[in-house]
Amino acid sequence: MRNLLMRVSYDGTNYNGFQTQPDGNTVQDVIEQAIYGLTGESLKITASGRTDAGVHARGQIFNFCSVAMIPPERWCSALNSRLPSDIVVTDAQEVSLDFHSRREAKRKTYRYTINANQFPDPFHLRYQFHHYGRLNVSAMEEGLKHLLGTHDYTSFASRRSTKPSHVRTIYDAWMEVDTSMSRDHPRDQGVVHTYITGSGFLQHMVRIIMGTLIEVGEGKRTPESVRTALIAQNRAAAGPTAVSHGLMLWDVELDAASYIIRT
Amino acid sequence: MRNLLMRVSYDGTNYNGFQTQPDGNTVQDVIEQAIYGLTGESLKITASGRTDAGVHARGQIFNFCSVAMIPPERWCSALNSRLPSDIVVTDAQEVSLDFHSRREAKRKTYRYTINANQFPDPFHLRYQFHHYGRLNVSAMEEGLKHLLGTHDYTSFASRRSTKPSHVRTIYDAWMEVDTSMSRDHPRDQGVVHTYITGSGFLQHMVRIIMGTLIEVGEGKRTPESVRTALIAQNRAAAGPTAVSHGLMLWDVELDAASYIIRT
Repeated sequence: MRNLLMRVSYDGTNYNGFQTQPDGNTVQDVIEQAIYGLTGESLKITASGRTDAGVHARGQIFNFCSVAMIPPERWCSALNSRLPSDIVVTDAQEVSLDFHSRREAKRKTYRYTINANQFPDPFHLRYQFHHYGRLNVSAMEEGLKHLLGTHDYTSFASRRSTKPSHVRTIYDAWMEVDTSMSRDHPRDQGVVHTYITGSGFLQHMVRIIMGTLIEVGEGKRTPESVRTALIAQNRAAAGPTAVSHGLMLWDVELDAASYIIRT
Repeated sequence: MRNLLMRVSYDGTNYNGFQTQPDGNTVQDVIEQAIYGLTGESLKITASGRTDAGVHARGQIFNFCSVAMIPPERWCSALNSRLPSDIVVTDAQEVSLDFHSRREAKRKTYRYTINANQFPDPFHLRYQFHHYGRLNVSAMEEGLKHLLGTHDYTSFASRRSTKPSHVRTIYDAWMEVDTSMSRDHPRDQGVVHTYITGSGFLQHMVRIIMGTLIEVGEGKRTPESVRTALIAQNRAAAGPTAVSHGLMLWDVELDAASYIIRT
């Protein structure tokens, strides 16, 4: 029996989110079917957490225990040949039997992408929220900084959240502007990527943060109002939930050097 | 009557190339249908040149004459609302009646994209040629430099080319490596973009250049062999034709300041 830790990238467009659910067609289902096709094992994989319908991942992790005698370095290619092209396993290694992806995911980074050029980009339609009109990006950056630290993020969580505590830590958050798809046009502001690294994220948390920051960028709110919203601990104090397709689980960092048996 | 010059981006995946042809379903057909829907005019647009099936464009240009009383600044949104999301008109301006897109396209830049990371990127499958195995990128850059200047590029043209002359000028050519989608893995070399700016390009020219440079990167050819192939003026002296979906018409530059009536 081996406990295998893998990293996976997926385009979430065609799936009902990561985690298995009654309607089916989830990323988890498809990966478990690929494992079944490879080893004949009907098993459940454990991920660092769920992602919502339409959300993408560049660096999701998951683990599962298998009795198959496949060396870890062969797993990626063996699974990828059975997976659709919108799901790609990029790393596989053996870890100790007590390793658990959700418990060991110490820091997660999400990226949210806003296309602030005048027109949509036909090459990134699935991965960008296209924003019409001017955005004050430096005001958005100022608002974002108010969310750093350890706080109760109730204002930035779905009202349906059932978590016992809404206290999380945001370690780092920054914005990058990519002008490679822009033209020499005053209404082309570039593609704005927002990266947020935290201990964990509540349901819709990044999307509500982004919906609030977009209001800051539009001048509908001040950067300071982000702090006010945070202190309120009330969902109504924050902005709307930004669309899912701009969101990508960018990276999951493990505090798990001691768990790795071999790479 | 106005002569209108427009710039367009398109994802070529679902089209039989740019230019109208008997099988239909070309980018040109779809744009002409959108113009017909908007103005009722059955007309032909003139582009800077054709792109092959599966090739993309970020900065293609085209022009046409219309009697419609639509101000130039309204055209982009009016057409985009009638175009599928994989074709986006990004600029429109009025030019003098003798302006002709093919004749005024003085410099064109193509970009060819090779994913040299270990695994394919599910977010860019349509726009990258995924190369398995190591590439010597600096050898490829050295080979590319041999193509600069004014030469007869017969070795890098389709044998079906019917052009009376194969002499063209490559003004500039360079490579950029993007590691933003790479992992900390020795087999992840990044995404390699090759940009080539020239006076004009023969059929399959960029794809044959790239097929040849990939052989250089794989160590199957020396960088100097690119110069030898060029001098041979024989298609057999160059490498294979790289796949179309890695290619994008990046930009078309006009020598046309004098033609612009208003922007």
